[in-house]
Amino acid sequence: MMIVMKPTATEQEVQAVIDRVQSVGARTHLSRGEELTVIGAIGDREHVARLELEGTPGVDRVVPILKPYKLASSQFKHGRRTVLEIGSRKIGGENFALIAGPCTVESREQTLETARVVRDAGAALFRGGAYKPRTSPYAFQGLGQEGLRLLAEAKRETGLPVVTEVMDSRDLEAVLEVADVVQIGARNMQNYSLLSEVGRCGRPALLKRGLSSTLEELLMAAEYILKEGNEAVILCERGIRTFETAYRFTLDLTAVPVLKELSHLPVIVDPSHAAGRRDLVTPLSLAAAAAGADGIIVEVHPRPEEAICDGAQALLADEFAAYAERVQAVAAIAGKATSAVAV
Amino acid sequence: MMIVMKPTATEQEVQAVIDRVQSVGARTHLSRGEELTVIGAIGDREHVARLELEGTPGVDRVVPILKPYKLASSQFKHGRRTVLEIGSRKIGGENFALIAGPCTVESREQTLETARVVRDAGAALFRGGAYKPRTSPYAFQGLGQEGLRLLAEAKRETGLPVVTEVMDSRDLEAVLEVADVVQIGARNMQNYSLLSEVGRCGRPALLKRGLSSTLEELLMAAEYILKEGNEAVILCERGIRTFETAYRFTLDLTAVPVLKELSHLPVIVDPSHAAGRRDLVTPLSLAAAAAGADGIIVEVHPRPEEAICDGAQALLADEFAAYAERVQAVAAIAGKATSAVAV
Amino acid sequence: MMIVMKPTATEQEVQAVIDRVQSVGARTHLSRGEELTVIGAIGDREHVARLELEGTPGVDRVVPILKPYKLASSQFKHGRRTVLEIGSRKIGGENFALIAGPCTVESREQTLETARVVRDAGAALFRGGAYKPRTSPYAFQGLGQEGLRLLAEAKRETGLPVVTEVMDSRDLEAVLEVADVVQIGARNMQNYSLLSEVGRCGRPALLKRGLSSTLEELLMAAEYILKEGNEAVILCERGIRTFETAYRFTLDLTAVPVLKELSHLPVIVDPSHAAGRRDLVTPLSLAAAAAGADGIIVEVHPRPEEAICDGAQALLADEFAAYAERVQAVAAIAGKATSAVAV
Amino acid sequence: MMIVMKPTATEQEVQAVIDRVQSVGARTHLSRGEELTVIGAIGDREHVARLELEGTPGVDRVVPILKPYKLASSQFKHGRRTVLEIGSRKIGGENFALIAGPCTVESREQTLETARVVRDAGAALFRGGAYKPRTSPYAFQGLGQEGLRLLAEAKRETGLPVVTEVMDSRDLEAVLEVADVVQIGARNMQNYSLLSEVGRCGRPALLKRGLSSTLEELLMAAEYILKEGNEAVILCERGIRTFETAYRFTLDLTAVPVLKELSHLPVIVDPSHAAGRRDLVTPLSLAAAAAGADGIIVEVHPRPEEAICDGAQALLADEFAAYAERVQAVAAIAGKATSAVAV
Repeated sequence: MMIVMKPTATEQEVQAVIDRVQSVGARTHLSRGEELTVIGAIGDREHVARLELEGTPGVDRVVPILKPYKLASSQFKHGRRTVLEIGSRKIGGENFALIAGPCTVESREQTLETARVVRDAGAALFRGGAYKPRTSPYAFQGLGQEGLRLLAEAKRETGLPVVTEVMDSRDLEAVLEVADVVQIGARNMQNYSLLSEVGRCGRPALLKRGLSSTLEELLMAAEYILKEGNEAVILCERGIRTFETAYRFTLDLTAVPVLKELSHLPVIVDPSHAAGRRDLVTPLSLAAAAAGADGIIVEVHPRPEEAICDGAQALLADEFAAYAERVQAVAAIAGKATSAVAV
Repeated sequence: MMIVMKPTATEQEVQAVIDRVQSVGARTHLSRGEELTVIGAIGDREHVARLELEGTPGVDRVVPILKPYKLASSQFKHGRRTVLEIGSRKIGGENFALIAGPCTVESREQTLETARVVRDAGAALFRGGAYKPRTSPYAFQGLGQEGLRLLAEAKRETGLPVVTEVMDSRDLEAVLEVADVVQIGARNMQNYSLLSEVGRCGRPALLKRGLSSTLEELLMAAEYILKEGNEAVILCERGIRTFETAYRFTLDLTAVPVLKELSHLPVIVDPSHAAGRRDLVTPLSLAAAAAGADGIIVEVHPRPEEAICDGAQALLADEFAAYAERVQAVAAIAGKATSAVAV
Repeated sequence: MMIVMKPTATEQEVQAVIDRVQSVGARTHLSRGEELTVIGAIGDREHVARLELEGTPGVDRVVPILKPYKLASSQFKHGRRTVLEIGSRKIGGENFALIAGPCTVESREQTLETARVVRDAGAALFRGGAYKPRTSPYAFQGLGQEGLRLLAEAKRETGLPVVTEVMDSRDLEAVLEVADVVQIGARNMQNYSLLSEVGRCGRPALLKRGLSSTLEELLMAAEYILKEGNEAVILCERGIRTFETAYRFTLDLTAVPVLKELSHLPVIVDPSHAAGRRDLVTPLSLAAAAAGADGIIVEVHPRPEEAICDGAQALLADEFAAYAERVQAVAAIAGKATSAVAV
Repeated sequence: MMIVMKPTATEQEVQAVIDRVQSVGARTHLSRGEELTVIGAIGDREHVARLELEGTPGVDRVVPILKPYKLASSQFKHGRRTVLEIGSRKIGGENFALIAGPCTVESREQTLETARVVRDAGAALFRGGAYKPRTSPYAFQGLGQEGLRLLAEAKRETGLPVVTEVMDSRDLEAVLEVADVVQIGARNMQNYSLLSEVGRCGRPALLKRGLSSTLEELLMAAEYILKEGNEAVILCERGIRTFETAYRFTLDLTAVPVLKELSHLPVIVDPSHAAGRRDLVTPLSLAAAAAGADGIIVEVHPRPEEAICDGAQALLADEFAAYAERVQAVAAIAGKATSAVAV
């Protein structure tokens, strides 16, 4: 890191910083310009990171040079991309995966019907929520264990691997009985206890970016999972909070190529929650595929007007096959093959 | 709520919305302008809230009229303000409470020394972290149970009630052995499982606003706690995330008078985490008191340059008494009395 | 609009609001719920808009129902889309237009060489800056009138219509001698004097969204131009300012389908300024085309490493033809034809 | 500045950057860590600033070390603060100035009545708008030259110096006939032509921060004025745009101590436009004074319910004297004397 000293810093203050840096085993490198003095600290990433030099007398600011994450970084894999294989479907690299299903598991009929539709249209994985984080304590919170049972049934019937969310470490064991991929929602992206638990469980994790998390924070959250020895993390852009009120969230597609540059992990996009409106899901899905996403996770419902939760943003099951075809055509132009297994 | 129909909505679409609203027991109210039709839905708040009409054919947008929270609202207490009494210190109403202590409990000496200093300067409560949410998995995560023991000792010695954070429901029991107030951090503000557990524990809760949470979301998070029968919630503004990079977070002091208008709950401010720099803590503390805050939670350290965590933002223990005096002078102009018990 | 009264509003306060609304010739519509009273104001948009009722005793908030813009709205054209014809190139509707050229006109050679390259690759219009808004007063501010002369020469030689920016009303006359489309930059989006002048000049205008402008504000800015009788406005999304610091701006592609729903005006995207980095320009361009943009405005330079301004984001002239082909392939999937004239 | 090379950068790429830096007369300084190479560029600020090295092969990112502004920086005055003297009122340093008056000049009676009230309560300057930037082209745009005449009359009668806004260079001459301080509004903060013109006019300027401008951009805008030889610039925080929708803008009071650290220029706060609601103006004014502001600019109206523009946020003339007293009491605790001249 670079420590920029104030123009008014004294010799003693400069020396005190140098001593502090050297005390953690790092080398220093002094650079005196006409107006400023800059001290470079070179050494082990973690040791240097623990130097909390902001606020030290004479220090103007500290500029980190190394990224604070390591296992999640592109360098860690020397430029090779991680490709996950989940029930014979591939995610990452040259593969494009469509993950589809209802926002919430509501009933046996709705779940099985949707699972069949998305399988037939070539989805790689089936998604569905049993535990739902809701802003209001008065809103429907998901079917819980009953929802997990319905997901298991859909999986048996269609052969599709299942993605479902865990909100509480105490539910993890039950979730692992059905989930092929464990989802961590945007509101829990910095729930560090949960991240570590999911890391330890060894199952692939789908990690959604927090509403106002920087890419660096997302990669640090992934690092919490990777650090436990779990190498299978899928990053998911799902819209960020901005000043714009014309839509629920602002889908940040610049994150797709930039995350793929910073990290070896697969990057997918959730256009449903970002938009909050069905008519925006198709253009945003096409845009995500064009931006180079490794996949899309999208909500589908046979009768959205009856959905208990977020029906307004669900694609119609009837129209899903046509949607999937267009998205995959754009993904192909962006250089991807589709990862679904022939049925 | 008001349902604004699209200019192109048909008679059948308008009727379908009316039928849907009436099906949950609400009354409707039709208003036809020259360009638009608006349907008012009047009835039980929770029933109407569950109507997810966005995306219904013909609907342009849905404008909520009632606030989605109830127990947290000013109306619920008919304009009376909640005043908490914690170990004979009052928070809320006419009382101004200073909550001070180290960011993290690091050692016996640091903890006891700081506790004595803040007690002598008139702090109402003692704060200190045993479990620390850290962006990096490589950073110090707090002393855990050992930290709780040191907090208990500081409490015995100084008589100050203790505020400490819980990050995981599984630690709650241990935390409750020492905490007079249980803190929920900004990153866990929408960890709904944790909110409900803290609600059920019955102990006063200090709920920090998420980095990018609206006031409405903060009040909905408080509602999760209140709904479990726990009436003792303190709201805390601690800086929001904006485009500005000159400081860590942007302290949002407009939130203070607005939260006090919307809710009966006490509202305090954390200037330390917002600023991230010691020299900003005093002007922001004075500003918070001037804006009408019911208290301030602030970090103090005897030797900040040795602090393991966030030393750069800690006030110097030596200077804390002078700080407290100035803050309380401004609070007095804003109409507050100081809530500390004479020592 | 809907005027929501406070729960504590008195009968007199309700009546005073009703009287005020009726005094501007609007009708009122009273709706009393169990907890709240709502007054609907129905009448001429502009009269109602001038009622500034916020802050009136008893009023909780005012919810606008009608959009504040009229000429820019979809309704104004009854759903038909505006298609501009500029030098026989079409923008809007089914047409996709590539607008390309250097950020800044730097020299005769650079200008003519770039113009030829983009014409040969099928660009519809040529862009280039003679007047450059720069954050720093010490940075190069453009060649001014000399730049306009070079643009005129490029136009004569290639036959491409020219898009160039005007920053000051006093330069408008000179700009109009060469510009087929007058660009108003993001920083001037709310420079109302300039908007009105450009409206009066009658030439097509390319209006960039301000860094932190809502879509509604962008459409209101367009309304300033349209109101002067100038019907030819192209809206341009160019990235908004968010908390994310990993890139210069956050390209907001949700704006594309939403602007096309709200307005009849053509909507294009500028991926160069949003990204600030060449390697992001292609994925973001493909994404913009996939989202349904009516065109893309992009920077191209024969030797970006020698560019005086923003070279880092310019596409290489050598690679432009391949880029154009891919973008147009995606635009075709999104339902567009390319608007360039065969050369 | 520091140029951080990519881990994959070759020797040739490193050398090419060094050559480029040296070609503008700057010295280089090479620092090789285990994972990264960093090149320091040391030399004349403006020359180095013109190096646009982002996007150069092998370059990861460029970290500026020197601030891009010079005349506006604290260092330029070696830590001394600028104190302006306007008609014998002082702004800056130890002085606290209240600037008050109507949002818009509406009539002779309203203008003179308000001017008398604010003078009697100890305001240092009188504010009032003749040219009003309005989001809607259909809204009242100010009285223009007639408004300037009324301001001149108020000045003659009360002796108060006048602050009024200029929106268009072509109106500057007329504005200068009455204005003691020329205001540049938030929407024109990056209207560089206007900034330069105001710089050349030599009259003190009040420069409002743009809705989403960083402090660095604000200081760069000030630099445009200062560069023309005009040393009298007052910076004004007036609320920034964030995700929060509970209020119009989010007043950023952290900007006050930080701007005072970065720059020698006086810093004032406009709480009226930030809040948009009268009841928030007092707590935010007290908070601004407590944060160390050099003054406050606030809107006052004798009969706000009749105001043509922004009546909802105007303080009542009747209550202004009590307001001024409280604000000055807090300013005194923050170490300020009041700058008004005894009447």
